[in-house]
Amino acid sequence: MKYEMPDVDLKALFLGTKGENTALFKELLLKMVDEHVGWRQNYMPQDLPVITPKDKSKKTYQETADHMRHVFDLLSSKLRANSLPWHSAGRFWGHMNSETLMPSIIAYTAAMLWNGNNVAYESSPGTSQMEEEVGHEFAQLMSYEKGRSWGHICADGSIANIEGLWYARNIKSLPLAIKEVAPYCVAGKSEWELLNMPTKEILDILDQIPDKMDEIKAHSARSGKNLHKLGKWLIPQTKHYSWPKAADIIGVGLDCVEQIDVDDNYRMDINKLEAKIRELAAQEIPVLGVVGVVGTTEEGQVDRIDQIVELREKLSNEGIYFYIHVDAAYGGYARSIFLDENNEFIPWEEIEDVYAKYNIFSEPCEWLTKEIYDSFKAMNQAESITIDPHKMGYIPYAAGGIVIKDIRMRDAISYFATYVFEKGANIPALLGAYMLEGSKAGATAAAVWTAHRVLPLNVTGYGKLIGASIEGAYRFYHFLYNKEFKVGEKTVRIHPLTRPDFNMVDYVFNEVGNTNLEKMNKLNHSFFEQASYVKGGLYSNEFITSHTDFAIPDYGNSPLPFVKGLGFSEREWYYAGKITVLRACALSPYAHDKNVFEDYAHAIEKAIQAKLEAIYSEMEAEVEEKVAALVM
Amino acid sequence: MKYEMPDVDLKALFLGTKGENTALFKELLLKMVDEHVGWRQNYMPQDLPVITPKDKSKKTYQETADHMRHVFDLLSSKLRANSLPWHSAGRFWGHMNSETLMPSIIAYTAAMLWNGNNVAYESSPGTSQMEEEVGHEFAQLMSYEKGRSWGHICADGSIANIEGLWYARNIKSLPLAIKEVAPYCVAGKSEWELLNMPTKEILDILDQIPDKMDEIKAHSARSGKNLHKLGKWLIPQTKHYSWPKAADIIGVGLDCVEQIDVDDNYRMDINKLEAKIRELAAQEIPVLGVVGVVGTTEEGQVDRIDQIVELREKLSNEGIYFYIHVDAAYGGYARSIFLDENNEFIPWEEIEDVYAKYNIFSEPCEWLTKEIYDSFKAMNQAESITIDPHKMGYIPYAAGGIVIKDIRMRDAISYFATYVFEKGANIPALLGAYMLEGSKAGATAAAVWTAHRVLPLNVTGYGKLIGASIEGAYRFYHFLYNKEFKVGEKTVRIHPLTRPDFNMVDYVFNEVGNTNLEKMNKLNHSFFEQASYVKGGLYSNEFITSHTDFAIPDYGNSPLPFVKGLGFSEREWYYAGKITVLRACALSPYAHDKNVFEDYAHAIEKAIQAKLEAIYSEMEAEVEEKVAALVM
Repeated sequence: MKYEMPDVDLKALFLGTKGENTALFKELLLKMVDEHVGWRQNYMPQDLPVITPKDKSKKTYQETADHMRHVFDLLSSKLRANSLPWHSAGRFWGHMNSETLMPSIIAYTAAMLWNGNNVAYESSPGTSQMEEEVGHEFAQLMSYEKGRSWGHICADGSIANIEGLWYARNIKSLPLAIKEVAPYCVAGKSEWELLNMPTKEILDILDQIPDKMDEIKAHSARSGKNLHKLGKWLIPQTKHYSWPKAADIIGVGLDCVEQIDVDDNYRMDINKLEAKIRELAAQEIPVLGVVGVVGTTEEGQVDRIDQIVELREKLSNEGIYFYIHVDAAYGGYARSIFLDENNEFIPWEEIEDVYAKYNIFSEPCEWLTKEIYDSFKAMNQAESITIDPHKMGYIPYAAGGIVIKDIRMRDAISYFATYVFEKGANIPALLGAYMLEGSKAGATAAAVWTAHRVLPLNVTGYGKLIGASIEGAYRFYHFLYNKEFKVGEKTVRIHPLTRPDFNMVDYVFNEVGNTNLEKMNKLNHSFFEQASYVKGGLYSNEFITSHTDFAIPDYGNSPLPFVKGLGFSEREWYYAGKITVLRACALSPYAHDKNVFEDYAHAIEKAIQAKLEAIYSEMEAEVEEKVAALVM
Repeated sequence: MKYEMPDVDLKALFLGTKGENTALFKELLLKMVDEHVGWRQNYMPQDLPVITPKDKSKKTYQETADHMRHVFDLLSSKLRANSLPWHSAGRFWGHMNSETLMPSIIAYTAAMLWNGNNVAYESSPGTSQMEEEVGHEFAQLMSYEKGRSWGHICADGSIANIEGLWYARNIKSLPLAIKEVAPYCVAGKSEWELLNMPTKEILDILDQIPDKMDEIKAHSARSGKNLHKLGKWLIPQTKHYSWPKAADIIGVGLDCVEQIDVDDNYRMDINKLEAKIRELAAQEIPVLGVVGVVGTTEEGQVDRIDQIVELREKLSNEGIYFYIHVDAAYGGYARSIFLDENNEFIPWEEIEDVYAKYNIFSEPCEWLTKEIYDSFKAMNQAESITIDPHKMGYIPYAAGGIVIKDIRMRDAISYFATYVFEKGANIPALLGAYMLEGSKAGATAAAVWTAHRVLPLNVTGYGKLIGASIEGAYRFYHFLYNKEFKVGEKTVRIHPLTRPDFNMVDYVFNEVGNTNLEKMNKLNHSFFEQASYVKGGLYSNEFITSHTDFAIPDYGNSPLPFVKGLGFSEREWYYAGKITVLRACALSPYAHDKNVFEDYAHAIEKAIQAKLEAIYSEMEAEVEEKVAALVM
């Protein structure tokens, strides 16, 4: 049966900021529970129930049920008292959290009743098939070649990143192993050439000697040998801490990680990347791989993947090759805004028309630039990509994912030797052989699969949701831009960090005239405290945001232009050593609506005013206390 | 408010083989949904709903909702058509799957509505606190010292095993790093002595030089240095494939993994372990660590942890020390059957009385031996232990866990340097710094936390459930033992592989008089096909089991005594090269009941008979076809 996709209405897909869709939610939830129970009942109807009415009348049964009811009172109280009101359509501008898709929540719950383990096909035929489909959908989203690419769901983006580095490490080491096991395949090549062999060329060689595969793998980096020969792993300065951790875990080590400075837009500086690679090459140090980030954790910025790819093409003419991994844990789903209803990447000159046709934005939005477009377009040139459904896929935690350009790469990391593989059973794929985990919830696959059915990974589906999120972010960005608050005699002004490449807005408060960076940092940290669980409360908090620090040991001087633009001297920057920034992940599926946003804008402006007043009166009280102490 | 635990009745805690507890399930599920919705509504009641009645009347809304309803029809059909009926109280004796605890399913669903990410405290205060409590409960379950030990939930047992090896690798490398950074702390020690330093001694040294910590860590194995010096990682022959994979991932490499033969009971042979360690020591090769398994994946057997610990004590007098990791992914929760109502390990002489008091077994059960008791008791001497809630914790996938003896070990793997740690916010623990994952479902913590409240981790709670499972396994074991089936002229007899250490029963069918091992393997493989999705169907299948192969490259000759006992010659064993075994994980919470078991025993005996007849008539048809082809 072919789906006939309707014109998707996002308002039918979320529980709602006030639970507006509770009836629909319960309808579908109970339908799935009932159909599960029916399935239990009708498997061998000749078998009688084992929990009898008499059992249920027992005192122990009643007491156990009552005890369970009491535990749920505890659980409910703890959850309600200690959770964040990110469901608000306009008061939550903080941590990466939001409404998740109602269909995913229900699908997860339903599939959980069946409790499949997607690593073992035997335990989960249905959800394993769903994961296989999801993997192909990820590949299609990235414009990887159909039938040659592959993907799967995993615990989260850090696990996917570790897996990406595992791929890179083992593949990069294969030519050295081929030289040991089948030297005739790489005759005449120097070690430098072996360590700069393109991924495709390596896999093509292996294709020719399938009977040597196990032996070659046994001599590859998986053996523990040659790890120190593989070269450097280059990551942007905006790095997520998962990258150094991954290098530690994978055994190539922190010493092999080098960070590349970012430019004013918090994107990897490609000139510096090229200079670093050439500097290493001059010392005969290869590059294990380069990570480009699509949606940085702290800024939501998008590295110029197209320029990384171009650089590789240029350098490969000079005999230098590096693996590319795109960390699109955050931004991966956003590629759906570039695919048309046939999942083809939309030509640049048609994109405005397509957006108009599918109502991607409710009003003209200046977000899209050719640079961002080109960056997303080039993703299909990377060997592997991290993509997290639990981020911009609006799927509940925990659902990460990874997708690879060439399915043959799997064999470079797969555990099983040929003779034990699948133990004689003809099963589609024993996932545990190709990934870190050895058990995995089938329910996660069902949640992602269901979401992808409701919202296709193109402009007819997820593209609309991503568009809503970006439009909401830009509304917030414009709301903040140079906004001023009067607090007593002082004026406090908001300065956004950068024009958002995506849907994250970073910003700072500064007192007009203040040239003391530490003072500004303190103000923003105080504001974070007021606008978070720290001092502002959770449920009672009328405006919520999150924060981050850009400190010199991590970010170098990349924040300096922004800091100077605020009127601080270079000396101030080095003295303070960091800038404290407020950070809003704008994920709400409602805030793009002009009327909704305006209603909330008024409310949060008042809330911000109140928080600033609280901060200033606290500061004054501190001063007076100090003065009093001096006078005494 | 102190809980008053009732006399736990397992029948109130599961949805039921026929959905007997559906009413209770829905009552609690809807209560949690309603309380969540109430929470949404009452956060800032002055804010109006953003999805209006008019929105809901729109055609696009209706069509989107209908499309979603259609997708749920698809999902429901796929799940019902392609899932395993493991909920049956007596027909499913296969893969590690069963009913999971109703309170966990509901708690997961409820907490999923809040969608906390337990790696970021900021996003999940409530569920992060629950995980902290669960970690302490794991530690208590292992009789680790209160306040000095620590644990957390992770994606699964393979991830926990990787983490265990990560701990071992980084800790083992620390003395070499100390020698570089603070040589005065290890003055006069040879490299051999440094690589054989007990974990506690290493951590005590670090305690004295906290300001050197970051620098020492930078010189440890995390840098990528010295990995090849750390020695061998010894695992039992019954190894789960996650162990070689973990060595590959962690970078110490497959070459560092050595497997130790198992004895007739499929437990690691301690004499061979000692011989191997001495053989390595003679070559000055250290032992990075030894893995003991509590609940092997294929047999459910329990390594003699007490003897591994004793061996370490003995060898440490000779200057040899190794890290011990217990892989209790499967058997970890079973330790609760050894803890009294105050969570103290029950003295051997009192255990019968305690079991009688808490009705752990419904009839006398010969399961418990002093050897098993001692093995479980000694677990608290290991440095780290893998424990999976989604296995014997009866929690839905995916929920793994790890627990460590000494909380200071965390610092050996933690990522953040002191200056960025917690970015100035005073939060209880930023879990991402100490584990592989960077995002984690708060819902998992809620599911485990709720289960632990309903069923404490001792004889008053989980102990009863574990007891039920073991008693069910023993009923099945006795049911199988030497049972014979007449198929035409032939007699087929069942032979269990070994007396179960826990709740897994492995067994083979053999034709009486058959001395051809390949023929027996074929019979058992055919039986698996009939008793699984392969040929037997899923929903229509009246008896379901799983299978495994013990092949010489993996298991060596450990199956040989069993093979010989069945009347096969040694020559046959080498010729066939493996034995195909059927495998039943007996997890049902109902099958321990004598009446329930007997009802089903009759039904499955008939089903087995039918399957054997199908196999033999297929074989006959094959023979006739061959004969016909010859005659032609």
